Amino acid sequence: MTRVVIIGGGAAGMAAASRAKRLNPKMDVTVIERTKWVSFALCGIPYLAGCTVKTLDQLLYYKPEYFVKKRGINLMLETEAIKVDGSKKKVVYRSVKTGEEGELDWDYLILATGARSKAPKIWPEIKEFENVFYIKHIDTGDEIRRYALKLPYGSKAVIVGAGYVGLEMAENLSKLGLKVTIVEALDRVAPRVLDEDLAQKVEERLKSYGIEIIKNSPVKEFRGSNGRARKVITDNKEIEGDIFVIGVGIEPNVDLAKDLNLKIGETGAVWTDERTRTSRTDVYAVGDMAEHRDIVTGRMVWRPFAPAANKMGYVAGTNVAGRDAIFPGSVGTSTFKTFDLVVAATGLNRSEAERLGYKVVEASLTGHTTAHYMPGGREVNLKVIADEDTGRLLGAQVVGEDESAFWRINVIASLLTTKGTVWDLFVSDIGYAPPLSPVWDPLIIAARLLMRKLGEVPKKF
Amino acid sequence: MTRVVIIGGGAAGMAAASRAKRLNPKMDVTVIERTKWVSFALCGIPYLAGCTVKTLDQLLYYKPEYFVKKRGINLMLETEAIKVDGSKKKVVYRSVKTGEEGELDWDYLILATGARSKAPKIWPEIKEFENVFYIKHIDTGDEIRRYALKLPYGSKAVIVGAGYVGLEMAENLSKLGLKVTIVEALDRVAPRVLDEDLAQKVEERLKSYGIEIIKNSPVKEFRGSNGRARKVITDNKEIEGDIFVIGVGIEPNVDLAKDLNLKIGETGAVWTDERTRTSRTDVYAVGDMAEHRDIVTGRMVWRPFAPAANKMGYVAGTNVAGRDAIFPGSVGTSTFKTFDLVVAATGLNRSEAERLGYKVVEASLTGHTTAHYMPGGREVNLKVIADEDTGRLLGAQVVGEDESAFWRINVIASLLTTKGTVWDLFVSDIGYAPPLSPVWDPLIIAARLLMRKLGEVPKKF
Repeated sequence: MTRVVIIGGGAAGMAAASRAKRLNPKMDVTVIERTKWVSFALCGIPYLAGCTVKTLDQLLYYKPEYFVKKRGINLMLETEAIKVDGSKKKVVYRSVKTGEEGELDWDYLILATGARSKAPKIWPEIKEFENVFYIKHIDTGDEIRRYALKLPYGSKAVIVGAGYVGLEMAENLSKLGLKVTIVEALDRVAPRVLDEDLAQKVEERLKSYGIEIIKNSPVKEFRGSNGRARKVITDNKEIEGDIFVIGVGIEPNVDLAKDLNLKIGETGAVWTDERTRTSRTDVYAVGDMAEHRDIVTGRMVWRPFAPAANKMGYVAGTNVAGRDAIFPGSVGTSTFKTFDLVVAATGLNRSEAERLGYKVVEASLTGHTTAHYMPGGREVNLKVIADEDTGRLLGAQVVGEDESAFWRINVIASLLTTKGTVWDLFVSDIGYAPPLSPVWDPLIIAARLLMRKLGEVPKKF
Repeated sequence: MTRVVIIGGGAAGMAAASRAKRLNPKMDVTVIERTKWVSFALCGIPYLAGCTVKTLDQLLYYKPEYFVKKRGINLMLETEAIKVDGSKKKVVYRSVKTGEEGELDWDYLILATGARSKAPKIWPEIKEFENVFYIKHIDTGDEIRRYALKLPYGSKAVIVGAGYVGLEMAENLSKLGLKVTIVEALDRVAPRVLDEDLAQKVEERLKSYGIEIIKNSPVKEFRGSNGRARKVITDNKEIEGDIFVIGVGIEPNVDLAKDLNLKIGETGAVWTDERTRTSRTDVYAVGDMAEHRDIVTGRMVWRPFAPAANKMGYVAGTNVAGRDAIFPGSVGTSTFKTFDLVVAATGLNRSEAERLGYKVVEASLTGHTTAHYMPGGREVNLKVIADEDTGRLLGAQVVGEDESAFWRINVIASLLTTKGTVWDLFVSDIGYAPPLSPVWDPLIIAARLLMRKLGEVPKKF
């Protein structure tokens, strides 16, 4: 009987386990998970913190019993894999509760150990402070809100990092009545997602909701007393707060991968091929600990995003079950909502594209989400970039007020997947009905603007 | 000086005129338009009828003066082109008001004469009835509502045809307090858009809004007296009403095209190449009177939809101005909203695909529009079909409760444009954030279901 051991019961690990067992029910599939939860939605943490989601249980896609009873998967909860032996094909594990150790044999190993916060390494002083939070696990959301709800109304929250976690937290902590300040190391909000022009629009809107934003200010240190932080220190500022949430600085958890001497990529995550195999053919790596390929540039990237993690898990599970599946990679679509703004991006942003040597043409416009005469339409700010030499789409960014902004980015994302060009975008047959879209959708207008810059007709036509 | 004459001032005609003049301001560009409006949004008529749009003026993208003053286009309003001479390159026109005739020379002619209702041909008796309406022009919306608002509350409206016009009208006439019955010749609502299973969901919802639907009932005759229709007659029913709206039966207006002996396609519309040229190199045809290519099957099709009309106009205008642009075609995306339902489809439906000889694999599912734990998520019913031999996507249909349903179809539409496969859909990097989408989007689940049926990996990989 083939024995599959999966280390890590998050989305990627459980997708792999479920898929393997489904395709090949005779396989012995065991998942080792450090916490008491599996199949958890870490992306829901800000919404748990802000009480949009009421209970932690809601963040589980399925309860552990489901996987055991319905899917026949062995679950070893509150168990830590502490060592992997590649020659004997064993995992050494230890019970988190009792400290008891044991061993498990495997024919295939799937690593799904995820990512972890670097916060305690960067700021070791935070261990002393009960009011400094960073995402450890799914219960972090609960801890934040329990602490926040004890504070008097109008207390100050300081969020470190204006990435998507920071901006989702800003909305949710505001909802709890806190006065929020965001401290960002770089020169803009959402620096990994947006170019400066669109980031500016997000910043203005956040300010209108009373969020203070301090940019160009890497946090050097947390200071406090009696077990509570009182302020963060930057080069030239001291920012006081009553609760602190760190939304930046995660790294792939590759400790066990090092036991096995697996190839680690330049990104610091475990290298995988298009079947999610590592440099050992009997070991797969999936999710936030692993690299995968960027379809736009062909380079290996580390993108700790849930959809790619799930797909990698699905593909690994299919492959260990004896079928053949591939995960060619992703294009880096990234999205979040903060207050009433929807922000999304896909592919490269302008500065990345230029750094990689592309000659970039750009279309930027402010469009409308419905026919001009229909009530309820919203503004949408869209930027699409393409390669001047080939007309290939390279990426897009959007800031809008409803989910159609997000979906316009998904249209570009799907065209990036098939290496689509500006002319493909022009031809893209976006539907039209007055309450749903304008007859010239902003996407098609962007294509027109780019076509003008590239000559109207593709060179090969 | 090059003289361009454009016949028809709708979306396609004005897009062509604007583009030609912009690229080549020295050209003499004249638009001949039968009504007193140009650049009108006929798709807004149901919303004008239902008072969602308050005034007819709102349905004009730009006022006529704008085109004259800002864009330097000659507008001949309330003027009908009555004959085209291909050898002398002349148009004979007649003033609608005075009956005065005149001639105009052209170097390039762009036909944009649109489509027209066949209703008075099918049911000649309706000419006698003041309470039977079909879409003649933009003012039809105004006429319908003026008549409807005079009727006592609870009067009966009969809509002929359950296509998108009929279903948009059903919502809008209901809003005016009318009791609505739809009479449809075929076996389901939205028969050109949806397969039976999804059509059933729309029908159930319409019934919940009090709409009566009578299927399999071609209307044979309108009957009435004293200038007012009282009922429609089908094979075995008589359906009484106080106001009647016909939402079916349009045809391309190709009268002038016949003067020029232009090639007419099998669809009955004017054949065009990928530059929107007709069989004469100095005559272009754009919009609802012209054929274009279906990108999925490669066949010529007649699709009187506004986005394609606009793109054809843009391309024709670019080409007559001496540049080179192409319109490779469309994939037939079609969408509408009726009450709280969003309906959309793209590419082929199952029965069309089978009729064309494809071996069809299908994924049908009911999914959720957001992360399962977020409030506000909706149900979405999705069907995606693909070709069993190649894995190429062939089409998709959706019935949902918010605009994300529509946008999911647009993602498939863009993949159809680039001849994407089921595996491209799986890889499609749909973004994820809890308020915006589930981590396994219904689109990706559909891809997974199809991959199972096709073998997990593409044959060529």
